[in-house]
Amino acid sequence: MKEYRVAIVGATGLVGREFIRVLEQRNFPMASIQLFASARSAGKKLTVNNQEIEVRETTAESFEGVDITLFSAGAEVSHYFSPIAAKSGAVVIDNSSAFRMEPRVPLVIPEVNPEDIKWHQGIIANPNCSTIQMVVALNPLHRVNPIKRVVVDTYQAVSGTGSAAVAELTQQTKQVLNGQETIPHVYPHQIAFNVLPEIDVFLDNGYTKEEWKIVEETRKIMHADDMAISATCARVPVFTSHSEAVHIEFSSHIMPDEAESILAEAPGIKILDDTAISLYPQPWTAAGTDEVFVGRIRRDVSCSNGLVMWVVADNLRKGAALNAVQIAEEMIARDWVSPRGARK
Amino acid sequence: MKEYRVAIVGATGLVGREFIRVLEQRNFPMASIQLFASARSAGKKLTVNNQEIEVRETTAESFEGVDITLFSAGAEVSHYFSPIAAKSGAVVIDNSSAFRMEPRVPLVIPEVNPEDIKWHQGIIANPNCSTIQMVVALNPLHRVNPIKRVVVDTYQAVSGTGSAAVAELTQQTKQVLNGQETIPHVYPHQIAFNVLPEIDVFLDNGYTKEEWKIVEETRKIMHADDMAISATCARVPVFTSHSEAVHIEFSSHIMPDEAESILAEAPGIKILDDTAISLYPQPWTAAGTDEVFVGRIRRDVSCSNGLVMWVVADNLRKGAALNAVQIAEEMIARDWVSPRGARK
Repeated sequence: MKEYRVAIVGATGLVGREFIRVLEQRNFPMASIQLFASARSAGKKLTVNNQEIEVRETTAESFEGVDITLFSAGAEVSHYFSPIAAKSGAVVIDNSSAFRMEPRVPLVIPEVNPEDIKWHQGIIANPNCSTIQMVVALNPLHRVNPIKRVVVDTYQAVSGTGSAAVAELTQQTKQVLNGQETIPHVYPHQIAFNVLPEIDVFLDNGYTKEEWKIVEETRKIMHADDMAISATCARVPVFTSHSEAVHIEFSSHIMPDEAESILAEAPGIKILDDTAISLYPQPWTAAGTDEVFVGRIRRDVSCSNGLVMWVVADNLRKGAALNAVQIAEEMIARDWVSPRGARK
Repeated sequence: MKEYRVAIVGATGLVGREFIRVLEQRNFPMASIQLFASARSAGKKLTVNNQEIEVRETTAESFEGVDITLFSAGAEVSHYFSPIAAKSGAVVIDNSSAFRMEPRVPLVIPEVNPEDIKWHQGIIANPNCSTIQMVVALNPLHRVNPIKRVVVDTYQAVSGTGSAAVAELTQQTKQVLNGQETIPHVYPHQIAFNVLPEIDVFLDNGYTKEEWKIVEETRKIMHADDMAISATCARVPVFTSHSEAVHIEFSSHIMPDEAESILAEAPGIKILDDTAISLYPQPWTAAGTDEVFVGRIRRDVSCSNGLVMWVVADNLRKGAALNAVQIAEEMIARDWVSPRGARK
């Protein structure tokens, strides 16, 4: 069995640590693993497969001899280092927004558009967390009954912002329970016991970049340029897993039972839908798992070919680290990447 | 100035206590105030306008000589006692769901359909919290440009369930922060750091009763039987104020600026909409206030005549107690209710 030299850039972040857990749990065929981060985090030690590994500062020389690099250190770092890594021969799977909408960079969810991996030129983009879980659930239905319009509103966890946001929610929650004032640092306003309809920066059209990612990334991944999509993205006081209320208008009539049957057979999806016993997806129980959970499947009574559903997934796993590792696994399975040793 | 004999049924509940606060704050012209609740709560003492008043058990005799009765003790209590109160001559303003969809009972938001008060036959229904704030924001736009379809997803506070739910969120939050297990009592699952897409009971069509209330009550209040509406209602770990992402399709084109101008002039609404300074409605800051806050007004890019907005209001005040008291004030202002003394 072939083994690959893997590097992680942004190893100390929430997604970086999740990369490590996912690689371990899936027995990813690693010949070696190198961990990189900013100068500030260099020297920290993390454990991978029971081996302690020192985190080093990312430099232009970090990628020599590396087969696969997983990036999750923000768009700026990816903009700078991904082309360098790709040029040195490492396939880059980039979790940032830096290259997602570049026409020459494939944007991939393995369950949806694995063929797009093939035309990469060194960099493959991992979609945004809120996009991934929705598209995993939309695509099997779209193949049977083309989707015309999607309205989605999100309930997103703070871990999507990073570990400082997790600490802020924890601290502010304690402060509120103790009757103390809170001072926001990571978010513009208090997040404890509050809801903030602001994720990522605002664009001129009044949407946030997060909302616009859902619009644009969904179309690119699904090769559906005409799909009408609108979204409101809100941050809720939840640590992990995003929830989404998804209202879908199809080309022709579809019954909830039919949709459930299609989704039950689809890869990466688990149906949790029995209202009689209050069974539906929840962020608390989805945290730490790999599936995209779908429930509350019912007719959208406001349009003739409509369905509504409730979609939940762990934003750090399927929404980030797991999807990226699955892209790497897909490349390996299809023999689209070779260990550097094998090339020589 | 005329003064009215007021009774509150369900006085010890969250909405009951809010009734008292609202009556005090608005200097409601009360000749007297009586507080009623279940036998369990009888004997408790509450302060109204610096006067200590003992809560008594609600009986068939409670309403003699009363001019206006405010009910918020659940649908069962209202079903039983509201007709008795009405028959004894007290106008009932009922915050429960008991009579809302009865054709002979008006369902009223004073800013929207005050004229409907006139045809009451003793009972006036107060709409559901999630309906009120949405309709206050929809109606001014609908009058200018008839609304064809609404898709709304809610982020609802636990105080809508009552004081036991507030206690449960508080306790579970502490338990999670201390690494302890939580045991749900009020809700079917943990609510701390979680989102539950289940509010009120499930109906056969897959919607919850809460979602269906939004569909039916909105049409009744707005006299818009053909308006297409679908909703997903979710409970979030917030104490007070519901938030709603509202996607609206109008009969003809409307610009966000135009909508904002209309809403800025409309009664009961405050616009909070400046993305440059992260200004938008939030449940934490809306708690304890009277307005329906509207922000994030932008085009719905998924349909040609669409708008999206974010609507937040205190669910105990405008969503319940305040709206009910405003109904009473409207009756007084229009001379549609007379103090019992005046009748004789």
